[in-house]
Amino acid sequence: MTHTPAIPYSETNVRVRYAETDQMGVVYYGNYFTWFEVGRVELCRQLGFEYKKMELEDDSYIVVAEASCRYKRPARFDDLLTIRTHVKETQRRTIRFGYEIVNSASGETIAIGETVHVICDRLGRPKSMPDKYRKYFPSAESTHSRGEKHHSPQKS
Amino acid sequence: MTHTPAIPYSETNVRVRYAETDQMGVVYYGNYFTWFEVGRVELCRQLGFEYKKMELEDDSYIVVAEASCRYKRPARFDDLLTIRTHVKETQRRTIRFGYEIVNSASGETIAIGETVHVICDRLGRPKSMPDKYRKYFPSAESTHSRGEKHHSPQKS
Amino acid sequence: MTHTPAIPYSETNVRVRYAETDQMGVVYYGNYFTWFEVGRVELCRQLGFEYKKMELEDDSYIVVAEASCRYKRPARFDDLLTIRTHVKETQRRTIRFGYEIVNSASGETIAIGETVHVICDRLGRPKSMPDKYRKYFPSAESTHSRGEKHHSPQKS
Amino acid sequence: MTHTPAIPYSETNVRVRYAETDQMGVVYYGNYFTWFEVGRVELCRQLGFEYKKMELEDDSYIVVAEASCRYKRPARFDDLLTIRTHVKETQRRTIRFGYEIVNSASGETIAIGETVHVICDRLGRPKSMPDKYRKYFPSAESTHSRGEKHHSPQKS
Repeated sequence: MTHTPAIPYSETNVRVRYAETDQMGVVYYGNYFTWFEVGRVELCRQLGFEYKKMELEDDSYIVVAEASCRYKRPARFDDLLTIRTHVKETQRRTIRFGYEIVNSASGETIAIGETVHVICDRLGRPKSMPDKYRKYFPSAESTHSRGEKHHSPQKS
Repeated sequence: MTHTPAIPYSETNVRVRYAETDQMGVVYYGNYFTWFEVGRVELCRQLGFEYKKMELEDDSYIVVAEASCRYKRPARFDDLLTIRTHVKETQRRTIRFGYEIVNSASGETIAIGETVHVICDRLGRPKSMPDKYRKYFPSAESTHSRGEKHHSPQKS
Repeated sequence: MTHTPAIPYSETNVRVRYAETDQMGVVYYGNYFTWFEVGRVELCRQLGFEYKKMELEDDSYIVVAEASCRYKRPARFDDLLTIRTHVKETQRRTIRFGYEIVNSASGETIAIGETVHVICDRLGRPKSMPDKYRKYFPSAESTHSRGEKHHSPQKS
Repeated sequence: MTHTPAIPYSETNVRVRYAETDQMGVVYYGNYFTWFEVGRVELCRQLGFEYKKMELEDDSYIVVAEASCRYKRPARFDDLLTIRTHVKETQRRTIRFGYEIVNSASGETIAIGETVHVICDRLGRPKSMPDKYRKYFPSAESTHSRGEKHHSPQKS
């Protein structure tokens, strides 16, 4: 019996831009959602495909339906941050991503978040994810079973 | 016995900027949180004070702790939108705001959201809301009781 | 001989958003270009057409080729600003807009800027401005002669 | 006679974010100025100091006075870009930076730009650049002489 090793999460770095700060001296809260997007795109790349081709070649857009963020510690100008992104759940037409933003120097968690997406065509009509991409996103069932394995490594 | 009539919500308008769209032809999802901020600031103004003075004169910052949004319909370039903002709950050190973004022309709900904030000083340390602002934000108890009244107007 | 009276400039207002400030406590310099865009779109509306229809119905995009801004005074959170926009020059395939950002309360000039645009189709290929829009943008010659009149009002 | 070897320009990379595109399918023109800022900050780092410390420890802010950009080719989502930044001129209280944005894959120039900055204290009052930073920014004279050398390499 073989297992495709799961990618627990992808990691990518961003450095906080001056443009992303506000007059409170910290990063404006809305900008975290841009970092989540950076994380999603890099997760796709690390899974093995480019999100832009999913749009261009397969008329499949990952349209956001829900987004949330909990802010733990401020991020400041010039901080180097690590964005950890993982797929929390996949169903036929939806994907749920989870995010953790970490200060790369201190290792402290800055924020955690989640987004839910619906696969749509160019006109915004929901559609099923094309088969060629389905392999990258384990179905709800396999995600769950894999999650169990992940939490009970001594049993494998 | 007199009641200060509650402001159910404040309303303010924004027109969608080209800068706020993305290549999907709709507003980028992170920009809704900027509109929530616009709604909060206008709610403060309509309640009777300027948020900027709360920062400048009273060293009190409304720091965001949580933010979420559910996207119902796309917003497009040049759409005129109405932002409805209300206080959902107030406690000694936290405020919860609720938002509804409506297409002003069609009346359709574009998005609904929520943010939770902690009152902090300039250095980011939590503090109680200054008394002079407390009157604008009914306490948790009065919010609840007022909420009951609101839902049971026949009892007042 | 009749003259269509020139619109010297259009005016529209924006209030500075918290999102637009940076940790210097003033508006981030890149955001002025978004305000210029707001000014352009409102100038079109005041001239008599909607820019979005120019894209949607006539496959004509006003693509930016050059942009510049001189910053005179800082703009701060919650400031009410007036954006004055005018057409500086029109040629067959290009338009030059001029902008002045003014603090609505003090009347002081915050910034002045300029953008040059090329009319393109959806694929980015330069094209002539459709006739239906040409009437809104006086040609280079008439702009110049009108400019002369403007600077020599004693002669009219 | 000794020469401090000039850094012709610093280089840093950015990948185009979805958030940075607009409904034309290309990067919104105002976002190039954020990339210029990224270039400036990395130039400082490569010269040997952190811009954030210049603000925090030496009360010296590089406040923008002028900014301009010429757009040559569109940048698109997920493009990898190289930002080349150099100091064009330094005077007692002002610095002029030059930028070139290049598509890293094709080598094509996407945009070129320039910003002029005034050294100010925290309150926005112009001041001379602190001595400790002056060494990183050759004075106007040496910039010019170096420029001559650069343009007449056959003479060196």
